[in-house]
Amino acid sequence: MQILFLGTSAGRPTKERNVTSIALSVHGHFNRFWLFDAGEGTQHRLLETKLKLNKLERIFITHLHGDHLYGLPGLLCSRSYFDGAGPLQIYGPTGIRDYIESAFRHSSAHLDYELEVTEIEAGRIIDEPEYQVEVAELDHRILSFGYRIVESPQSGKLDTGKLARLGVQPGPLYGKLKNGEDVTLPTGQMIHSAEVVGPTSPGRIVTILGDTRPCANADSLARVADLLVHEATFAGGMEEKANEYGHSTIIQAAQCASNAQAKKLVVTHFSSRFGEEDVARLVEDASSVFPDTVAAYDYLEVDVLKGNN
Amino acid sequence: MQILFLGTSAGRPTKERNVTSIALSVHGHFNRFWLFDAGEGTQHRLLETKLKLNKLERIFITHLHGDHLYGLPGLLCSRSYFDGAGPLQIYGPTGIRDYIESAFRHSSAHLDYELEVTEIEAGRIIDEPEYQVEVAELDHRILSFGYRIVESPQSGKLDTGKLARLGVQPGPLYGKLKNGEDVTLPTGQMIHSAEVVGPTSPGRIVTILGDTRPCANADSLARVADLLVHEATFAGGMEEKANEYGHSTIIQAAQCASNAQAKKLVVTHFSSRFGEEDVARLVEDASSVFPDTVAAYDYLEVDVLKGNN
Repeated sequence: MQILFLGTSAGRPTKERNVTSIALSVHGHFNRFWLFDAGEGTQHRLLETKLKLNKLERIFITHLHGDHLYGLPGLLCSRSYFDGAGPLQIYGPTGIRDYIESAFRHSSAHLDYELEVTEIEAGRIIDEPEYQVEVAELDHRILSFGYRIVESPQSGKLDTGKLARLGVQPGPLYGKLKNGEDVTLPTGQMIHSAEVVGPTSPGRIVTILGDTRPCANADSLARVADLLVHEATFAGGMEEKANEYGHSTIIQAAQCASNAQAKKLVVTHFSSRFGEEDVARLVEDASSVFPDTVAAYDYLEVDVLKGNN
Repeated sequence: MQILFLGTSAGRPTKERNVTSIALSVHGHFNRFWLFDAGEGTQHRLLETKLKLNKLERIFITHLHGDHLYGLPGLLCSRSYFDGAGPLQIYGPTGIRDYIESAFRHSSAHLDYELEVTEIEAGRIIDEPEYQVEVAELDHRILSFGYRIVESPQSGKLDTGKLARLGVQPGPLYGKLKNGEDVTLPTGQMIHSAEVVGPTSPGRIVTILGDTRPCANADSLARVADLLVHEATFAGGMEEKANEYGHSTIIQAAQCASNAQAKKLVVTHFSSRFGEEDVARLVEDASSVFPDTVAAYDYLEVDVLKGNN
């Protein structure tokens, strides 16, 4: 699992930072990926990466503000140009379906692939062998969701050196052993799966929050997450302004990571009033509250590593 | 008058070319400007130029396809961030108002300036001392307009050398003479405006067409234009495909310029199937039909010069 930031500015794009979108690799190195939000110009940012729209499987929208949304119609239309673009699922607050349908109706747009739009409520919205996704409401000016993506436990690695010494050649027996089956060789020798397969490890947890004031649901969604992505629209000390606009300061983002015992925090969604030097200073402030804090910038890629939960 | 191309690709953006938008300077060097179309990412392109959104006075939409339209909501919202952004007028086909209102309603957007949207029909839509703008319907898959912008005749230049020799100092008398009034100096000497003011010159004509098949209205709108901007989605020889999709080949664009006795042709809106070398070859082909043909590229600026009509 990797995360790639495609836009890290709040409200409007700047020369350095586009408005919000985040890609999450869910298989290989972005061989299959999901998007969280799609501000205007998300498809343009993707053109500068190796991520192809036919590898995009799902889009999750946190809330229906333009800087998280206005890139959706164009991205959906451009996806039709990509060979082998399969069905696409979109998840978002009530209103997302009508927004897309309205944009398409006015512009006579048609897609060459199947689009499935789900207007979600709090709870588990995806429950599959590989991933579970949980959603909860945050505290913003409008309905805003946070997403908690939980990878299923990863089965242990095969000890191929030991297998070779035992005389087991690569082939179907490898698969059986990896799946926990004990096997018997033609020689009559029995091999126990547990002898040649390492321990199962817990899956990784990534939490991506929409715009929000500090709130209990943010802390819950981020609980022991290996990676928390939290907005940091304002600087520490601007709590009143942040509250007025339904946002967080970078210090409040760090407090959320700390409350939740998250392993790593990436802050994003910086007000365009802050230049690059300001952002560096803000992150330094936040590090006193939560040491492993990193500022997102456009095209930043972060490997999601399993913390010691 | 200058024209600046902000996007020159058809249908979807490429790494080199964004989708359609064209800026027209109507005072000074983009001290006041108008936009024709606003594909997704137009506001991002503007960030790379000296054009500021508070200097934008009008937006003309040729037709409601996404690659000419999807940048509008974001650009309108971002304009609120600019100090002194005055009222803005938008002109476009029926449906443009509902498209904007719908996008804003779904995303809870509000502007800090006055927006006036006019759903236009063929005819003269602007008739002011500086400019007149005429509109006519073209021939596309959906309603598509072409715009003919006519600058008012320019009064002649003051011969300041002669005025100095006549003993007239710079001041209010200069203005009177330039406006055609004859004046009498304190010495009793009478100065005739015609003696010190050069001849009035006709205004310049710029024609900017939306997507279209070849049609009589395209030729009429482009009649003796000093600058014609025409789409060239397809290469010469692809007339059948162009017709099927409601577009023109570059040869048909050149034929329009030739029919209309335009002075200069800039072709744009190239299918993303064409690379930069292809475009150069296409323009060479078109030049045999209309010699003064130039291919647009993103950030190309063209001075509108008065031809010898």
